[in-house]
Amino acid sequence: MKKRIGVLLSGRGSNFEALADSIAAGRISNAEIALVLSNREAAVGIERAKARGLVTKVIPSKGLEREVYDRQVVAALNEAKVDLICLAGYMRLLSPYFVAAFPQKILNIHPSLLPSFPGLEAQKQALDYGVKFAGCTVHFVDENLDAGPIILQSIVPVEDADTEETLSARILKEEHKIYTEAVKIVLEGNFNISGRRVVRS
Amino acid sequence: MKKRIGVLLSGRGSNFEALADSIAAGRISNAEIALVLSNREAAVGIERAKARGLVTKVIPSKGLEREVYDRQVVAALNEAKVDLICLAGYMRLLSPYFVAAFPQKILNIHPSLLPSFPGLEAQKQALDYGVKFAGCTVHFVDENLDAGPIILQSIVPVEDADTEETLSARILKEEHKIYTEAVKIVLEGNFNISGRRVVRS
Repeated sequence: MKKRIGVLLSGRGSNFEALADSIAAGRISNAEIALVLSNREAAVGIERAKARGLVTKVIPSKGLEREVYDRQVVAALNEAKVDLICLAGYMRLLSPYFVAAFPQKILNIHPSLLPSFPGLEAQKQALDYGVKFAGCTVHFVDENLDAGPIILQSIVPVEDADTEETLSARILKEEHKIYTEAVKIVLEGNFNISGRRVVRS
Repeated sequence: MKKRIGVLLSGRGSNFEALADSIAAGRISNAEIALVLSNREAAVGIERAKARGLVTKVIPSKGLEREVYDRQVVAALNEAKVDLICLAGYMRLLSPYFVAAFPQKILNIHPSLLPSFPGLEAQKQALDYGVKFAGCTVHFVDENLDAGPIILQSIVPVEDADTEETLSARILKEEHKIYTEAVKIVLEGNFNISGRRVVRS
């Protein structure tokens, strides 16, 4: 039985495409994307998922209270029988209800070395702060913004000549690599969580 | 004329000894340690400085208001005609008066990848948070805790088996390297500060 991945996105979903490519190329064996779900009608990622022949669903979030909305999403994910949920540019905080429904089964990727620079425009935050190294983080999702135990991180240097665009592009390459790696680790179950530390078992 | 460095410390001052070693070995050319100053009588670093034949001074801070104390320290540093001030485990925030007296002339090293984990026990904070990479940061000092523009950072991996001791030891090696490097950069003046970004010129 293949492990079933649900992807949540709100925009272009570049990390969704990287995961889909990794599965297609056999870098994540024995897995499939069972559902690509967006809270926005206009998400480019939904079009790209359709073009790949994947099952898609749009559940508009506008105007709904967080948990009311999340109950619809959780129902759709349960209906699709997903084993793992990957956020890929999903621009919503999850309710405690959502988080509790899939313990240690929801991943997110963020383009910074958390806990530095959570939230929007992380790469610009890093540049403006003047750090010498930036990077990205795959973490389990809880109800807080860009929090939750860290599975993998990757580092890139910040160059003196960097702009938000050049730095973002350097980080994005690493995002695509470590999201695939992290999905493998979690699907294989070869880890323990001690406090906040995710260690390989 | 050799550039004159003032070192401020409160404890053992491992980074002071690394700087003194670097100067002795010629890794920082044309510089000397003009004064080692502590706010604590019992600082081991003062004994070590004396053993190296360096000029030392203890100005006890206990019970004094921040700026009242800092005026004494600034006077001592001016009397010693220092060109650069290096904090090495100096357990005090500097007053705006102190910072304004030596613009872009005060450096600190902190054992984390700032802005993550400022303050005490940075290595333990990093371990407890579960980051996969840790490191250290040399930065210009302002009146805030472990803030100010970053000159250099260095990265080390966090291993699953790490304790606070093993991680701290790995970071400390990097501290000694980049503090020397940062002092060279600042003494040579080959940098510009744009916003918070310190870039090489």
